[in-house]
Amino acid sequence: MATLVAPEHFTPEDDAIVLYKAVKGWGTDESAIIAIMGHRNATQRQQIRQIYEDMYEEDLIKRLESELSGNFEKAMYRWILEPSDCYAVLANVALKNVSRDYHVIVEIASVLKPEELVNVRRAYQYRFHHSLEEHVAAHTSSGYFRQFLVGLVSSFRYDGDYIHPSLAKYEAEILHEAIQNKNGNLDEVIRILTTRSKKQLKATFNRYRDDHGYSISKRLLNEESDDFLKAAHVAIRCIDDHKKYYEKVLRGALKRIGTDEDELTRVVVTRAEKDLKDIKELYYHRNSVRLEDAVASEISGDYKRFLVTLIGREY
Amino acid sequence: MATLVAPEHFTPEDDAIVLYKAVKGWGTDESAIIAIMGHRNATQRQQIRQIYEDMYEEDLIKRLESELSGNFEKAMYRWILEPSDCYAVLANVALKNVSRDYHVIVEIASVLKPEELVNVRRAYQYRFHHSLEEHVAAHTSSGYFRQFLVGLVSSFRYDGDYIHPSLAKYEAEILHEAIQNKNGNLDEVIRILTTRSKKQLKATFNRYRDDHGYSISKRLLNEESDDFLKAAHVAIRCIDDHKKYYEKVLRGALKRIGTDEDELTRVVVTRAEKDLKDIKELYYHRNSVRLEDAVASEISGDYKRFLVTLIGREY
Repeated sequence: MATLVAPEHFTPEDDAIVLYKAVKGWGTDESAIIAIMGHRNATQRQQIRQIYEDMYEEDLIKRLESELSGNFEKAMYRWILEPSDCYAVLANVALKNVSRDYHVIVEIASVLKPEELVNVRRAYQYRFHHSLEEHVAAHTSSGYFRQFLVGLVSSFRYDGDYIHPSLAKYEAEILHEAIQNKNGNLDEVIRILTTRSKKQLKATFNRYRDDHGYSISKRLLNEESDDFLKAAHVAIRCIDDHKKYYEKVLRGALKRIGTDEDELTRVVVTRAEKDLKDIKELYYHRNSVRLEDAVASEISGDYKRFLVTLIGREY
Repeated sequence: MATLVAPEHFTPEDDAIVLYKAVKGWGTDESAIIAIMGHRNATQRQQIRQIYEDMYEEDLIKRLESELSGNFEKAMYRWILEPSDCYAVLANVALKNVSRDYHVIVEIASVLKPEELVNVRRAYQYRFHHSLEEHVAAHTSSGYFRQFLVGLVSSFRYDGDYIHPSLAKYEAEILHEAIQNKNGNLDEVIRILTTRSKKQLKATFNRYRDDHGYSISKRLLNEESDDFLKAAHVAIRCIDDHKKYYEKVLRGALKRIGTDEDELTRVVVTRAEKDLKDIKELYYHRNSVRLEDAVASEISGDYKRFLVTLIGREY
């Protein structure tokens, strides 16, 4: 379930007027911006953006970019973008970062529904004049890691209900041989993880659990794990249970000395309208601290007020 | 330009009535079926199919399948299917054939526009409960050939106008080193051919021609060429100039002792509504025989009358 609280009925013209008042002249009324934008769903935000442009002949996003700053600006920018476009920006930022945040690429490609991923690829091309897979391939060196990443972002998985139990057993063994015993065919691992439907893969992961007594992601990583294995780990976690994956991302982002704001923003902004409530519950269960309290104690100012609003609580 | 001659205005109800009369009772009026279906575009055919089902509570395709036979039935079946669905069927037949007609897979993935290919992948899943790339991967053994085929069918290329001339020069050299001199990185060949936009690739192929004095596809194949090189050859030809590619497919199909009807049907059915007129001209230019005459002398009966109608001439 979502944490976002948005009204069923709203008047985009009224919102545009309030937003215009909040940004015009000297100073900016951040609270007014948060009060509106923190309570509008994706469709509503696009309507506001459109009406605002019609009424004031300027792009609301550009205006807010020039009025806001830092992590608050980043979060608001991602939040106002149409979701596919937001993912396209997140993917591009991840590719261009010196830290090469490839896990963001893997996450987007593995968590989104097949049709959603196609929309992101379309949005990516519109914005960057290259295909997502083209940029992924150009930013990585050849080998299994690149083959895997390109395969993931190019996937358009079958999204129906058919599952083949015997295939799950067979491919669970291939995965076991290849990654646990390190003597298998990585080509086959890539084939399985990039082409099988998510339901089929979940059946395969469950079969793995049944046959080996622990989950496939459990003993996957050690100190020597290469980029490929790390990416496979993220993909498996995202496909197996993306809510648990996101809980861990949030835990990691908040536990660090110096919060990882990019990670925090990404999860909150992309999940607030989808299943952040479930992720919140997992977080509380695992950490005995409420997510909004953990966030509120780690960050501050408008950024804090905005994120906590998206998490579903006013401060 | 298309060869299909279809009326601007038509009444699907009337067509359905004629078709019903043509199939009901003993015997079938093939001429009546050809007279209608040989002159309706894709949208019109779908309308007829829908109206026919509403009026007679049976699927026109299934009815025709039971009334017609042989190559005529095959051609009519493919022709009546919605185009994405037709490509899905063609791809699946190619994968299941003992002769493993992988060039059909390469052709579909390389000739279609990016958005069309996504539609085919969607249609494939709807019909076969697996993704196209899943079946392609499962039907091929690991290695470069599979990586290339999966990359091609999974591609969603940038379809805009931006081209990078310096990239074209750089990647033309990579292709030259890798495939002509056989000492390069095939990973890089796969990256270039599966992720770059078609316009970018055409610029690369042109650059290749300028730098080396012959086209990249010219000296690509020899007696020892493996499946990967053969597939690369088809992909390059389809991307560089798919009309010339189709002319050659037709030439090959008609020149064989015992015409290759599958190849002939595929080209006519998939191109009649698009650019078969241009392909016809290339054919005449290359063979000094008109395509419709060559086809008419190689095949016979209703199959001949139907194909020649699609090629734009009544017999």
